[in-house]
Amino acid sequence: MGTIATVRQSSKRKSRARGTKGSPATQPNPMRIFQTLNAFQQTAAMRAAIELDVFTAIGEGQTTVAEIAQRAGAVERGIRILCDNLTLMGFLTKNSAHYGLAPDAAMFLDRRSPAYMGSAVRFLNAPEILRAYDNLTEAVRKGGTAMSEEGTISPENPIWVEFARSMAPLMMMPAEAIAQIVGADAGGKCRVLDIAAGHGLFGVTIARHNPQAEIVALDWPAVLEVAKENARKAGVEGRYSTITGNAFEADFGGGFDIVLLTNFLHHFDIPTCESLLKKVHAGLAPGGRAVTLEFVPNDDRVSPPEAAFFSLIMLGSTPHGDAYTFAEYDRMFRNAGFTRNEVIRPPDAPESVILSFK
Amino acid sequence: MGTIATVRQSSKRKSRARGTKGSPATQPNPMRIFQTLNAFQQTAAMRAAIELDVFTAIGEGQTTVAEIAQRAGAVERGIRILCDNLTLMGFLTKNSAHYGLAPDAAMFLDRRSPAYMGSAVRFLNAPEILRAYDNLTEAVRKGGTAMSEEGTISPENPIWVEFARSMAPLMMMPAEAIAQIVGADAGGKCRVLDIAAGHGLFGVTIARHNPQAEIVALDWPAVLEVAKENARKAGVEGRYSTITGNAFEADFGGGFDIVLLTNFLHHFDIPTCESLLKKVHAGLAPGGRAVTLEFVPNDDRVSPPEAAFFSLIMLGSTPHGDAYTFAEYDRMFRNAGFTRNEVIRPPDAPESVILSFK
Repeated sequence: MGTIATVRQSSKRKSRARGTKGSPATQPNPMRIFQTLNAFQQTAAMRAAIELDVFTAIGEGQTTVAEIAQRAGAVERGIRILCDNLTLMGFLTKNSAHYGLAPDAAMFLDRRSPAYMGSAVRFLNAPEILRAYDNLTEAVRKGGTAMSEEGTISPENPIWVEFARSMAPLMMMPAEAIAQIVGADAGGKCRVLDIAAGHGLFGVTIARHNPQAEIVALDWPAVLEVAKENARKAGVEGRYSTITGNAFEADFGGGFDIVLLTNFLHHFDIPTCESLLKKVHAGLAPGGRAVTLEFVPNDDRVSPPEAAFFSLIMLGSTPHGDAYTFAEYDRMFRNAGFTRNEVIRPPDAPESVILSFK
Repeated sequence: MGTIATVRQSSKRKSRARGTKGSPATQPNPMRIFQTLNAFQQTAAMRAAIELDVFTAIGEGQTTVAEIAQRAGAVERGIRILCDNLTLMGFLTKNSAHYGLAPDAAMFLDRRSPAYMGSAVRFLNAPEILRAYDNLTEAVRKGGTAMSEEGTISPENPIWVEFARSMAPLMMMPAEAIAQIVGADAGGKCRVLDIAAGHGLFGVTIARHNPQAEIVALDWPAVLEVAKENARKAGVEGRYSTITGNAFEADFGGGFDIVLLTNFLHHFDIPTCESLLKKVHAGLAPGGRAVTLEFVPNDDRVSPPEAAFFSLIMLGSTPHGDAYTFAEYDRMFRNAGFTRNEVIRPPDAPESVILSFK
């Protein structure tokens, strides 16, 4: 049996084993099932690499197992196996004894990059989130999270402080997209209510682009500390005020030109969303708009993949949340009194923006 | 903003976001990092679908959310989100309101299929295995499992009973391949020692093909109960005997024509493997062969992917195990006294067979 022939066979296998719907396997093969049952190990490998700052080490030129291990305070065997697997996953390159950063890793996982998003691991892989998927079977049976009664949406759940601290980098691109969509650079008086502000980045970015914009951020008190810190860092704290509490119960007044609903509605069922949207509608000035950022799958709910998969996060972590389609959002906003909705899908982004006009 | 144009953009994104080393992304995009940090949810979805027997339901013609939910005793929202995600993962198809089985799922996940391998979830996702990856960072630091001192190789670890019970279906194809490679169909007197026999399938399959073969299976007592059950089911129990204990310490005698080392050596470091191989060498009759089934990556250790990834399983679950290259196995066997080694890579299989001649 020639080694070369078998290695060739093996690369054919590789493309088959990784085949997607677009390139269906000609013969059934158990490899993809095996890989899926082991996919949790890829998450663990990425988490370990971020925690040990392996990508930054390589970015700085420590490219051999020995160098990376020394910098990470780890044993060489551990680093070699970790880096080989990151290479298999496409985040590193390997050239004889030297590892390099693939473009995604160089941009988003090297701590020296302004787009560094390694902190996201602390929210996405928070122990309570990981635990929520230990028993997804039970979540499917009951149709909602098996974490607890309310999952991540329980009052003052500290996970949202972690969210505010760790997920901001992932939101920089959509925050800029929203600032452009609402025409922030054109300036002019503009009162913005940022519901469940979290890190506050969406309101802060509008304020950075429009020196006349005034932002009111609403969230739990502990979360708002993070938003206020970000407002200070951006130098917009003079136009940044806060309302503490729950968006469903807090009195946020009226006369807003823009109400931001970013990554919020997906946590709730449709009647709950509609009750909030009525309050949002009442809070908007004439001509005002609600701006919703969401994972919005097509009506088939299985495309595009980077939006459609989000329903699983909601099943695992909330009692009734979902990745709603545009048709569903359109109906919710209309039922709440809005006259018209528009969906905008920014290129290269998993989330869509829905503009809803009073 | 036209919906059609943006949907088109989104399918371009899709192929990019899923790009592999062969088709590198032209521009960095955080989606693959985000997907990797959420990959544990794909494992959870597959596990839930197997536990709820969703694939069998669909195979039997219960193809709508309502039908599957009723059969699984689950809420429709849970089933809909689960099945949509299995569609995204390529294991189901979706055609308006009806789900169907993709070829891999029909063959390996429908309980009515003779190749059903859903039971593998009980070993691959055993709670102690999942827990081992909660803190892979620590495993990388120390260069071996953070589960416990010895991980899965601790004496009489009950995980190997689960392995023997649940992993047999995945081993049917390699067991047939090995029976062919050793020429079992040609018959003739043949004494086979099956080290760490587990489910016993490798020895049993040789015995099924060669009515003169006599099998001696070695493993922990609780594991051997499973092997003996499989020998009885195959009708070869009259030529099947057992030795209880640890391969490193048990006296297994000599005069064997074949010694099977299937998925065993990867758990240990090289000196430990060599000490066992010396014992194996002594146990072989003149002209005898050791037959090793293993994940054997190329010398670069990052190809082929379906073999190379296995090192991560060993890092997470054993103190010193690895996915050794053929060069490493060749050296180990030669150091133990074997004269010659040959590697055979059966098509469409992640594991290789190494024949080692006394």
